[in-house]
Amino acid sequence: MAMSEELLTDLYEFSMANGYYATLPHDQEAVFDVFYRNVPDNGSFVIAAGLAQVVEALQNFHFTDDDISYLRSLNLFSTGFLDYLANLKFSCTVRAIPEGTPVFPREPMLTVKGPLLQCQLLETFVLNILNHQSLIATKSRRICAAAEGRAVMEFGARRAQGPDASVFGARAAVIGGCTSTSNCLAAKKFGLQAAGTMAHSWIESYPDELTAFRAWAQVYPDSASLLVDTYDVLKSGVPNAIKVFRELRAAGHEPIGIRIDSGDLTQLATKARQMLDEAGFENAKITASNALDETVIQALLKEGAPLDNFGIGEKLITSSTSPVLSGVYKMAALKVDGQWQPKIKLSNSREKVTLPGDKMVYRLYRKDTPDQAFADVIALADEKLPEKLLAINADPLATDDEIELTDFVAKPLQLEVVGANASSIETDVMKLQASMKDQLAQLPKATQRLINPDVYQVYLTPKLFELQQRLIKEHHQKAQA
Amino acid sequence: MAMSEELLTDLYEFSMANGYYATLPHDQEAVFDVFYRNVPDNGSFVIAAGLAQVVEALQNFHFTDDDISYLRSLNLFSTGFLDYLANLKFSCTVRAIPEGTPVFPREPMLTVKGPLLQCQLLETFVLNILNHQSLIATKSRRICAAAEGRAVMEFGARRAQGPDASVFGARAAVIGGCTSTSNCLAAKKFGLQAAGTMAHSWIESYPDELTAFRAWAQVYPDSASLLVDTYDVLKSGVPNAIKVFRELRAAGHEPIGIRIDSGDLTQLATKARQMLDEAGFENAKITASNALDETVIQALLKEGAPLDNFGIGEKLITSSTSPVLSGVYKMAALKVDGQWQPKIKLSNSREKVTLPGDKMVYRLYRKDTPDQAFADVIALADEKLPEKLLAINADPLATDDEIELTDFVAKPLQLEVVGANASSIETDVMKLQASMKDQLAQLPKATQRLINPDVYQVYLTPKLFELQQRLIKEHHQKAQA
Repeated sequence: MAMSEELLTDLYEFSMANGYYATLPHDQEAVFDVFYRNVPDNGSFVIAAGLAQVVEALQNFHFTDDDISYLRSLNLFSTGFLDYLANLKFSCTVRAIPEGTPVFPREPMLTVKGPLLQCQLLETFVLNILNHQSLIATKSRRICAAAEGRAVMEFGARRAQGPDASVFGARAAVIGGCTSTSNCLAAKKFGLQAAGTMAHSWIESYPDELTAFRAWAQVYPDSASLLVDTYDVLKSGVPNAIKVFRELRAAGHEPIGIRIDSGDLTQLATKARQMLDEAGFENAKITASNALDETVIQALLKEGAPLDNFGIGEKLITSSTSPVLSGVYKMAALKVDGQWQPKIKLSNSREKVTLPGDKMVYRLYRKDTPDQAFADVIALADEKLPEKLLAINADPLATDDEIELTDFVAKPLQLEVVGANASSIETDVMKLQASMKDQLAQLPKATQRLINPDVYQVYLTPKLFELQQRLIKEHHQKAQA
Repeated sequence: MAMSEELLTDLYEFSMANGYYATLPHDQEAVFDVFYRNVPDNGSFVIAAGLAQVVEALQNFHFTDDDISYLRSLNLFSTGFLDYLANLKFSCTVRAIPEGTPVFPREPMLTVKGPLLQCQLLETFVLNILNHQSLIATKSRRICAAAEGRAVMEFGARRAQGPDASVFGARAAVIGGCTSTSNCLAAKKFGLQAAGTMAHSWIESYPDELTAFRAWAQVYPDSASLLVDTYDVLKSGVPNAIKVFRELRAAGHEPIGIRIDSGDLTQLATKARQMLDEAGFENAKITASNALDETVIQALLKEGAPLDNFGIGEKLITSSTSPVLSGVYKMAALKVDGQWQPKIKLSNSREKVTLPGDKMVYRLYRKDTPDQAFADVIALADEKLPEKLLAINADPLATDDEIELTDFVAKPLQLEVVGANASSIETDVMKLQASMKDQLAQLPKATQRLINPDVYQVYLTPKLFELQQRLIKEHHQKAQA
C-alpha cells in the first residue's frame, strides 16, 4: 500500500465533497460509522482487522500535486475545492474497536467525526481496508478453530486477489490465528513467521524422487519436511522419505516430517503415520495442504486423520465460501448551525435502517464472572450507562421486548485512535492474535460454533432506541405531509 | 504494486532455489507453463489479463539490499546463494498470450524459459497477478454479456480484497468490457473513464431530498444523475428528481437521469420510466446498482426492466460467485547435460496430469471463414503444424479418438514478451477491451453462453499426445521396477 490511499476513492466521494464545498459551510461537521449487517459463512461475529493500516494512512493523509493535477484534469471540480484539497489539514477524530476484537452486527467498528467534506473522502479506502482484513481474519479464526490447536500455515499468495490481498491477507490471517505464512513479503513487513518446504518442481528437477529427497536433506539436514505426493504417496513418497530420514538420523539429524498435497488425506495420512511410526519416526509430523478449509478440516479430524499441521491456500486468502464482508459507512449525525442532528438512513427493509447519533459500544461482563462476556450494548456516546438497564435487542428482526440488564461491568470497545487524545494502537501481529484469543475465551462457546452458532445478544439503550423510533416517525410524517 | 514483487514469493521458492544452487549447475535451464484447469462460474473460457504488470515487474527484476538482508536474517540460505540473488541478472525468456484473449483450459497462458533458479522464483507473483486479473476480466465479460451492450460501471472499490484488488481489479474489469470505474486511483493509473454520482449521505446532508437534489443540480447542472432511493423511490425520489429536472431544463440544461440502489428494480424502474417519460424526460437514463451480477441482470432484462446502465460492486470486484482462478505454474522441461528433457507431473486424477515439453498454442480458423475460430491446438514448440492434422482432444476426460483437422489457418496465440526478441505489448486498456471484443466475435456464440456453454474443442498434436503417453508409461515402469 505504497499507493496513494487518498485517490483510492470512488469518484462520487470527490463529487460530493466538491458539492458540499460549494453549498455548505466548509467546516460543517459530521459523524460516520463503519458497521456490517451480515457475518461471512453465517458465523455470529467478525474479527476486526486492518485498523493499523487505516491509522497509518490517516496520520499522513494529504493530496500530492500529482493527485490534484489528476483531479483537475477531470474538469469536474472547482478551483476553490481543489485548493482546499491541496492544502487539506486533516482534522477528523477516529474512534475504533481494536484489531483482534470479535465484533457483532450493527456495532460501530470505527467512527469518524470531523468536517463532512473530509469524512466523505475517507469512505472508500477505510471500507476497503477494514472489509478485506476483517474478512480474512474472520475466516482464519474459523479455520484455526477447526484445527483445534494444530498449526495452521497461510499458503495462499498465488491465489490471492492481487499483491496487497496476499500481503495484508497474510497479516489478517495471523491476527485470526494462523501460526505462519508462506508469503515472504508479508513476513518481512509484519514480522511474521515464514513457512514452507518444497514444491513438486523440486522433485522433478532431479532424476528420481529419492535423489531429490537426498539433495534436500543435504541442504536442509535439520529442517527436512518432504513433499511425498509427486508420484505415489504410499508406494514411493513415504518409503523414500523414510530412507532419507534414516540416513539423516544416522548422521545425527532429526527430520521434521512429510507433507501430503493430494489424494484422500485421511487414508493417506493414516497409512503414512503407521509407516513412519513403524520406522521409528513417531515425532515426524504430517502436514496436509490440499484445498482445505474449516469444513474439510473438521471432517478429516472427525474421521481421525492423524494430521499435525495444515497449510491453507485459496480458501483462506480469498475467504472463498464467503468472499465479501459488506461493511458500510453511514452518516450518523450532522452538525447544523452549531447543533448536532442525529441522522438515519431509512429503508423498506427493517434490517437496513441505520442507528442514528454518535454512539459507543460496550461489552458486558457479569460482576460475579468478570472474564465471561454475556452481551453487548450500543448506547449514545454522551449517555452514561446506568447500573441497571432496560435494553432493547439491536437485531431489527428480533421483537422489541425490553430486557433488564443488571449486575454487569461494561467495557467500552472503541478507543480514540486518531485525534488529540488518540491512544497508540497495538501493531505487533502476534500480540493482536493473543488479544483475539483472550477475547474469544471471554465469549460463550456456543456463539463460536462454526455451524449454527448461538446468537450473542447486542442491545440498544432505551435512549438510542427511542431516538431511532422518533426519527423514523418524523420521516414518515414528513413523507405524508 | 510499488511493493517489492521479488519478495512477494512463497518461502519455499527461495528454499528450493537455494537448494538448486547447492546441488545443481547454476545455469541449468527449465521451462515452466502457467495454465488453469477449471473456468470460474462454469464458463468455457477465461479472459487473460495482468500481463502488463507481469512484464513491467520482470523488466526490472532485482533484489534490493533490504530484500537480501531480510532473506539472510532467516538463517536458511547460503552466502553463495544470497550473493547470486544480490547480483542476479534476470535472463529468462517469457512468452505469453496477450491480455484480452479468451483462453481455454490447459492452454499455456504464459511460458517461462531460463535458469531453473530464476524460473522458480517467479512462480508466486506471476500466478498472483495473472490469476487475479484474469478472474476479474472473466467475470466482467460475463456481466457485460448479460448487460447486452448497456454501459457497465465498476463500483466495487470498498468491497475489493485490499487496495491492489480494487485498482488492478478495475483495470481487469475494463479489459473484460466495463465502460468505466468509480475508482479514481485506477482511473488515473490506467487512463480509465471515472464514473459515479452521489451517495445517500449527500441527501442526508441537506434538510430534505428536494433541497439536496437542487444543491446537486446547482453544482453539476450538466451532469445531474440523482440517487432516488434514500427515502422512497416513487413517492419522493422520482417526483423530486422530476421537479429538479424541470428546473434544470428551464435554465437550459439537460439532466442525465436517476440511479436506483435498492428495492425491486424491475417494478421501480418501470414506474420511474413512466413518470420520467410523462414528464418529458424520455432521454433521462435509469441506472441500477444493488447487488447485481450477470444472473440478476439477465433476470431483470428478461422481465423487461427499462434499465440503461448498471453499476456493479462486490460481485464483480471479488468475482464473488467464483472467487478463485486456480492457475498453476508447472515444470514442462528441464535441460540436463545440454539435452532438453520433457517433464510431467503425474496424478491419480487424469485431469491433473500435465502436458510435457515446451509448447505452443494455436487458434484455428477455417480457410473459407477466416474470421471464425473453430478450435485450438496445443503443439510442441518445435513442431511445425502440418496442413492436415490427426488431433487428440486435450480434455483428459474426453475419449482419445483422433479427429482430422484440415483446411485451417493456424494463428499462434503466444508472443515473446520478455527476452531478446520480445514484442512490445499493448497496455492501453481500452484497446485491450477492443481486442477482447474482436476475439470474442470470432468464437462460436454457443461457447460464450453464460449458463451451460458449449465446449470449445482444444486438441493436442499427435506428437505432444504421444510424448505425454510415453512419459506416463515410463514413470509407471520406473515405479514398478
